[in-house]
Amino acid sequence: MLTYKNLDQTSAYEKLRKAPPFDVTGLTAERVERCQIPLAAGLTFSWAASPLDEATLDILAELAREQELPEKYRALAEGERMNTGENRLVLHHLLRGQLGADVILEGRNQRDFYREQQDRFTAFAGSVREGALKGSTGKPFTTVVQVGIGGSDLGPRALYLALAEWVRTHRAASEPLLEARFISNVDPDDAAAVLADIDFESTLFVLVSKSGTTQETLTNEQFVAELAAQRSPGLEIGKHIVAVTSETSPMARNEGYLESFFIDDYIGGRYSATSAVGGVVLSIAFGPRIFQRLLDGAHQADRAALEPEIRKNAALLDALLGLYERNVLAMAATAVLPYSQALSRFPAHLQQLDMESNGKSVNRRGEPLGYQTGPLVFGEPGTNGQHSFYQLLHQGTTPVPLQFIGFRDSQQGRDTTFEGSTSQTKLKANLAAQIVAFARGRAHENPNKHFPGGRPSTLIVGDQLTPEALGALLAHYENKVMFQGFAWNLNSFDQEGVQLGKVLTTELLTGAPGPELQAFARLLGVSAG
Amino acid sequence: MLTYKNLDQTSAYEKLRKAPPFDVTGLTAERVERCQIPLAAGLTFSWAASPLDEATLDILAELAREQELPEKYRALAEGERMNTGENRLVLHHLLRGQLGADVILEGRNQRDFYREQQDRFTAFAGSVREGALKGSTGKPFTTVVQVGIGGSDLGPRALYLALAEWVRTHRAASEPLLEARFISNVDPDDAAAVLADIDFESTLFVLVSKSGTTQETLTNEQFVAELAAQRSPGLEIGKHIVAVTSETSPMARNEGYLESFFIDDYIGGRYSATSAVGGVVLSIAFGPRIFQRLLDGAHQADRAALEPEIRKNAALLDALLGLYERNVLAMAATAVLPYSQALSRFPAHLQQLDMESNGKSVNRRGEPLGYQTGPLVFGEPGTNGQHSFYQLLHQGTTPVPLQFIGFRDSQQGRDTTFEGSTSQTKLKANLAAQIVAFARGRAHENPNKHFPGGRPSTLIVGDQLTPEALGALLAHYENKVMFQGFAWNLNSFDQEGVQLGKVLTTELLTGAPGPELQAFARLLGVSAG
Repeated sequence: MLTYKNLDQTSAYEKLRKAPPFDVTGLTAERVERCQIPLAAGLTFSWAASPLDEATLDILAELAREQELPEKYRALAEGERMNTGENRLVLHHLLRGQLGADVILEGRNQRDFYREQQDRFTAFAGSVREGALKGSTGKPFTTVVQVGIGGSDLGPRALYLALAEWVRTHRAASEPLLEARFISNVDPDDAAAVLADIDFESTLFVLVSKSGTTQETLTNEQFVAELAAQRSPGLEIGKHIVAVTSETSPMARNEGYLESFFIDDYIGGRYSATSAVGGVVLSIAFGPRIFQRLLDGAHQADRAALEPEIRKNAALLDALLGLYERNVLAMAATAVLPYSQALSRFPAHLQQLDMESNGKSVNRRGEPLGYQTGPLVFGEPGTNGQHSFYQLLHQGTTPVPLQFIGFRDSQQGRDTTFEGSTSQTKLKANLAAQIVAFARGRAHENPNKHFPGGRPSTLIVGDQLTPEALGALLAHYENKVMFQGFAWNLNSFDQEGVQLGKVLTTELLTGAPGPELQAFARLLGVSAG
Repeated sequence: MLTYKNLDQTSAYEKLRKAPPFDVTGLTAERVERCQIPLAAGLTFSWAASPLDEATLDILAELAREQELPEKYRALAEGERMNTGENRLVLHHLLRGQLGADVILEGRNQRDFYREQQDRFTAFAGSVREGALKGSTGKPFTTVVQVGIGGSDLGPRALYLALAEWVRTHRAASEPLLEARFISNVDPDDAAAVLADIDFESTLFVLVSKSGTTQETLTNEQFVAELAAQRSPGLEIGKHIVAVTSETSPMARNEGYLESFFIDDYIGGRYSATSAVGGVVLSIAFGPRIFQRLLDGAHQADRAALEPEIRKNAALLDALLGLYERNVLAMAATAVLPYSQALSRFPAHLQQLDMESNGKSVNRRGEPLGYQTGPLVFGEPGTNGQHSFYQLLHQGTTPVPLQFIGFRDSQQGRDTTFEGSTSQTKLKANLAAQIVAFARGRAHENPNKHFPGGRPSTLIVGDQLTPEALGALLAHYENKVMFQGFAWNLNSFDQEGVQLGKVLTTELLTGAPGPELQAFARLLGVSAG
């Protein structure tokens, strides 16, 4: 029987609050070599420049035991109703593989259900890519446009951007190359821009909404249909649309669509990138085998996260390090800094994943918490960020723990040697230099040129950003966020905080808005009543 | 004679620290109607949902007087050496117009110099757009690629994305439409991706580096040249490159380039979007008249910011509100939330502008400061963010002040009516609803569904994101950051915090790195010695 208690009810937390941070100005080569853990899929997690020492790590290990973190993860994977607010299971791990006992719901093996959906969209993607399935006017599909918002957009988009160039340069000559685009915002300028130069006849739309009622997505579906009718009058738009939704949603019952693929209530939006939500668009754009490799990498990370010993479990260590930084060192934010242009939107995905999961003030039973929970998450790729916000990170008044990501090799292999080193070598040299600069600082007699150091970071490093590495990276952060949620004793799997905005929007558009809402509506020229 | 003192040496600060915040759960329609200021170019600044009341505003007005904020701005515009660390003038306002007395340096009127450069690139852009100037193989230019990083990338890119669709839909049929792209990162995958499908023969490169020594940009220049030689052997790459740099930089002396346009040491990188740094690429892509309209909007905002009365000066009020939130309410971050997909990268520009300017720990004389300075800045467009990180903003444990931006009309005018309202109406309704939801909250018996409210925000609203509105928006934030820097008594115009990373990178690539840097270099497989 698992027990659930708030962080401040654990005895480990009392010790942790008294544990002094390792002073990272004392970063040494010995520490760099010692403080590494294999993550999964060839990735390594380095905590050398973090504020942890062995004594604190012991306390974190005690906290992991006391909060039963590996046990709760296993229970989650085996079908415990961890989404307490919504009384739901949390099964995104089953999308990638089986971690423990079968999860049977109403006679259905959930792993089989997800695999069946994957088999269906694998076959579908194959027929699109081979040109067997064509648009309603007889043209093969060359472009796929995902229409979705939040988890139906950020994860799939980040993964697409992360692999598009890798796939372009590594695919067999016989493999087709389809372009993917994304429409998310209800701002009509978003859809209009994405569709400005589109050839509807050779475009397939993937409409993604678990509930089938997402305002933005339904509105954009109609936007697409109207523009298609105007630009390509002979086209049957339904023959250009597939839906990704739950079996019980209104969208699933639309006979006009070409096809529907299903997820269910146990796949949260921000955890859905490895379901049909990401799988359909990625399988069509890259081919189903690339998507399977991504799942394989994610599953490797999922398995690695089952390890009970914190010194061998990168996700668990990363999670509890973040907790120590948040609750003991009182750091309110964290930056994700991938030294890889392909990961340009990965921080935006992690921003949702982390902030929507753990940006909560109540525990899993809905009782107020007396400590800080999820941090602000932001980030941009390096070296770009170095020429932007790193000034504040180095010399500002608010230290921010940093999460670096880097790869030994570039994705495309095309490079140039300038002043004795390649671009990739420069990229990596900058990354290594930044970690050391943040940690150790450097004294200068002019205070304006003085670097205090003492600014902690971690590093995830791999050989190349392959589908497997990307899958492992994605799952690592999902599991990190999950472990933090367990440690804080909150429910990382609901999002009640998004509801009030929807309610007030509906009141304004269709009901009786309050006077202050009416006043803002007047200021903004909202004309509907 | 201006006097400079730290914030905590002012008598107004003592009062400010005791000034209780206005409780925004008490937001009323009366407040929405009263708390508005014209910003410039048709924009309005609303501080109704901010934590300011009239009493606090009086104290902020006193602080503005005591710190001589309008006077310092005027002095800056008239050539005072406000960049104390580098002993330089700060003249980006002169790019847009004359605000006060002429600035004469070594017999040169600086305003004339900037206009002369603008005249030169206006003429150049005209000849590119008319097809009079062609590539070295005789093809007209259809694509312009900006190669630059930091301020040479973020501002120009944000402005390009902000207006690309507006220009596409509003241009005269006779006006050509050129595409702009951007290469920034030293990651070779960045340049390789941007150039993957480029036709070098019809592409013009704008190489931007004030110093002419930026590692990333010089490396990417060579990357471009090598790839061009490989793909288009007959092409003379120099005839496809223009430089934007300072007159004294090594880049300015390159006879091989088609043309060079100049900025000088008084235009900081993050303040350079309205100089040749942004002007060349935007004048080529959109036409010089569009760029001039952007400058006009910026100049209007610059003039509006000269107003000494805080209740009539949006930039000054916005600045001191931010200071109150940072130093009195102890809020460490702020989010920029444009309800406009065209502003998708505007938060990334503001992130640099703000964090690189005011992320400092010493005052303008280099003495340590005893209070917090610049906040973390992040943001994404709405409604996208609502489905991502807003959960934490509504119900997380760390309140974050929010800066909303919205427009009454879309840019492209193409829309659809779904369930009784247009997309644009839904977009605005969501924006109004969010402001009210954050401010007022809503009680619920289930603590998990309870919204405490009390989360402050501001709103900048205009009719449409036109070139003038965008220019005003850009200048508003530049001036806000400047006023905050003056109030904190720091130098917003240098960036010594970026230096140590460069030094350590050079030590690693060419010198004698320390053992811990060597250890990270081994982990990352850095092979150069």
